Amino acid sequence: MNTQPPTDATAWNALAALAEGWRGDALKRALATDATRADRLAAQGPGLHYTFARQRLDAAVRDQLVQLALARDLPAWRSALLAGEAINVTEGRPAWHTALRAGASAPPEVQSAQSQMRRLAERLRDGAWLGATGQPIERIVHLGTGGSDLGPRLVVDALAESASARLRVDFAANVDPLDLDRRLRDADPARTLFVVVSKTFTTQETMANAQAAKTWLAQGLRADASLAPHFVAVSANVQAARAFGAGEVLPMWDWVGGRYSIWSAVGFSAMAAIGADAFGEFLAGARDMDLHFADAPLERNVPVLLALLGIWNVNFLGAATQAVLPYATPLRLLPAYLQQLEMESNGKRVDRAGRSVAYATAPVVWGAEGTVGQHSFHQLLHQGTQIVPVDFIVFDEAPGDPARRRILAAHAEAQAEALARGQDDPALPAYRRTPGSRPSSTLRFERLDARNLGRLIALYEHKVFTQGVIWNINSFDQWGVELGKQLAKALLERARDRS
Amino acid sequence: MNTQPPTDATAWNALAALAEGWRGDALKRALATDATRADRLAAQGPGLHYTFARQRLDAAVRDQLVQLALARDLPAWRSALLAGEAINVTEGRPAWHTALRAGASAPPEVQSAQSQMRRLAERLRDGAWLGATGQPIERIVHLGTGGSDLGPRLVVDALAESASARLRVDFAANVDPLDLDRRLRDADPARTLFVVVSKTFTTQETMANAQAAKTWLAQGLRADASLAPHFVAVSANVQAARAFGAGEVLPMWDWVGGRYSIWSAVGFSAMAAIGADAFGEFLAGARDMDLHFADAPLERNVPVLLALLGIWNVNFLGAATQAVLPYATPLRLLPAYLQQLEMESNGKRVDRAGRSVAYATAPVVWGAEGTVGQHSFHQLLHQGTQIVPVDFIVFDEAPGDPARRRILAAHAEAQAEALARGQDDPALPAYRRTPGSRPSSTLRFERLDARNLGRLIALYEHKVFTQGVIWNINSFDQWGVELGKQLAKALLERARDRS
Repeated sequence: MNTQPPTDATAWNALAALAEGWRGDALKRALATDATRADRLAAQGPGLHYTFARQRLDAAVRDQLVQLALARDLPAWRSALLAGEAINVTEGRPAWHTALRAGASAPPEVQSAQSQMRRLAERLRDGAWLGATGQPIERIVHLGTGGSDLGPRLVVDALAESASARLRVDFAANVDPLDLDRRLRDADPARTLFVVVSKTFTTQETMANAQAAKTWLAQGLRADASLAPHFVAVSANVQAARAFGAGEVLPMWDWVGGRYSIWSAVGFSAMAAIGADAFGEFLAGARDMDLHFADAPLERNVPVLLALLGIWNVNFLGAATQAVLPYATPLRLLPAYLQQLEMESNGKRVDRAGRSVAYATAPVVWGAEGTVGQHSFHQLLHQGTQIVPVDFIVFDEAPGDPARRRILAAHAEAQAEALARGQDDPALPAYRRTPGSRPSSTLRFERLDARNLGRLIALYEHKVFTQGVIWNINSFDQWGVELGKQLAKALLERARDRS
Repeated sequence: MNTQPPTDATAWNALAALAEGWRGDALKRALATDATRADRLAAQGPGLHYTFARQRLDAAVRDQLVQLALARDLPAWRSALLAGEAINVTEGRPAWHTALRAGASAPPEVQSAQSQMRRLAERLRDGAWLGATGQPIERIVHLGTGGSDLGPRLVVDALAESASARLRVDFAANVDPLDLDRRLRDADPARTLFVVVSKTFTTQETMANAQAAKTWLAQGLRADASLAPHFVAVSANVQAARAFGAGEVLPMWDWVGGRYSIWSAVGFSAMAAIGADAFGEFLAGARDMDLHFADAPLERNVPVLLALLGIWNVNFLGAATQAVLPYATPLRLLPAYLQQLEMESNGKRVDRAGRSVAYATAPVVWGAEGTVGQHSFHQLLHQGTQIVPVDFIVFDEAPGDPARRRILAAHAEAQAEALARGQDDPALPAYRRTPGSRPSSTLRFERLDARNLGRLIALYEHKVFTQGVIWNINSFDQWGVELGKQLAKALLERARDRS
């Protein structure tokens, strides 16, 4: 498979030449003169319609981007990903998160873990799981950080309308003691379960919080109470999890990266909240997207198009950031989730052959839920000096008052239009004019539910993978964070020696 | 006062020349060879120590940046700001938020509003404020968006440890009906007060939510109950607020911009949560920073230095974004607050003379609380292809378990060190090396309390103002968001006509 720099590809140079035609107000002119753009620059995925007619490109650019993907051997890389080959070469592992949602085709250990998760989740949801003093568990406090936190946090919040009323699920991720303290302020130790998630069971923040949880339980329960029924561990290190005193241990595997682990037992707290059936729908949605990614022709393949549009904006039109604007309160945590997924996966500067790259890789991914951001940073999107490409994410159906929902939908459409078309009425003073030609895409889902949430997350996973292939980097390691950990350890040891 | 482009200044060209010496690994070399950097590239502000020794500059650059500020007439602009002159020229108004924290020197209408706020807040905190059915109010739901939301939301969360246990304060800002619905799920209408904040009392999202609140109350209370004791309005439009049915109306003034309004009655919900004394400390902290900004020599003036470092990174070293990383769970909303403050204020492309600017203005401001971000996007900070300047914000004292607090502090220091020094051991494979020379500043506060929170927010306000002066833009309007509002209105009208 191709591990040469992408800049060697003929398509790369062709794209660089095409980009010259798309600076300035070319998009505005194209929108004004070509009524067929909206039909031609769009694609259908499972449960969703994707339009990129408001991006700075035409079909010729799209075709050249597809040529670039072919020159980078994307189909072969994709097959290797989906087959569970060890494409994470710096750690000698597969990145086989797609196996977690393969249903009846999943590996036996995955199916067995899913059965165990379902059994435990149902016990919690039925009120049959009792704490040390015989009270039913009513609150889960999930302790994890990064990839062991952001996924279940997002799912629980996104699907809160279908969550169990009996079980409350909270999260603490920071080693700042106030993060956990605030979650425990009104909790009853007799009715609280901690789900401790750490692949190695040595993550410093998570283990410090788990120890604090143990102290809090011991102080709140009878002196002779066993703490085992108050701890579920999710870890690849079963021995350490048992030694810690967890009553139940759910497995993790080294072939699943943290930021791709929501589909595994890392999602246990989310399954407990929304139920095993809804969690099954969530996995099925991801599977839908895997099949689409595997089978759809590249020029109609939504994750591939999303990836190629990102490459176009970053490498050819100079975008430094990518905004994600879900018009849905339930997806307010999506920007933080994608921040990890994209920036930790592709925030790299050394390619697969060990060369420093001579081109930009991952942009800064940021955003907030609409309409909230409109009253905050949208000023810069419309009138700032840098171009920020936007992904609008909208849902045709979602719960709640239809009148306010119509207002919400109108604003999403109006923002995309305002960014693209601008306002250059010469009768207005200069400070009131907006330049337009600012690029955005819109992902329109039929409805906000577990299945489409699975599709949405898997869509961005495959986007990130595709960009890693184009950029010739390994999207599945994160060596850049090791130095900070080492220095913190040294500082703490020095402080301990001094005292 | 100077309204010429900053690029005309001699200092601008001098800085452009100096910047050539600070690309690549110059910072790493400077740190290795100059032991006095940490002392010389630092300043003291009220309650805080600011160090910028890990930025890509030396004293010569700092001095030239100060020359640029002088060439831009910063002292004269600063006097105009603090004197309440109409420096917001496109709207013909002052931007006189500093008057709101001037204590005994504040205008009479400000002092009178503060007395009214204190009286109402104490009634709520004492349980003396009764709803329509005679029950005491126990929950406040704050309805506002943008500048009428982010400030009180930040203060209530940041100072939660000193908040009233009797009163719960929630926020809903989005027109997505689920935002408010989720806040009301477990609320009791008889004990719930809505604080509706809108300068014009016509903000679409806020008024839609206020109407929904009215319906919810009417359904939950006796048919003949008056809703007046369940609504406080904060608005400059007293007539509309009364017509809506608010029992109490607190004033706003057109000389206070939304994103600078936390010091006004917009902060009422925060005062109710933390008490009038703590809110007074918060105002006093901002006043401390106003006096420091007014009086400290530019080369030791913390908001001015923060602003100049931003200019250096954006305009001379090419940074497109600025990360804000508070190592404190209570400040997890600070990045969102500063996103509005900086991007809405300075995300502009037309200067005070109506010219399109030929230089970059506000960067994208983003971030998350440490250590949470370390397990997410820090990979890109250390090994990505773009340079992201970081503001670390740390506190020597804060509540909670000292052991975890030490870990937190060690990580903040270790991240700054790792970014600056890197790891270039040739024995390591290329993918494990980090380049270093990545810039950061550290703001170290003595403790996390109301006074220092006031200082911190006012610090960034004056930073933003100073940058607006350098960039020759009006930081106090937001005309860029008007087009989107108009288009949304047109879309809604068209849909109404069709149905």
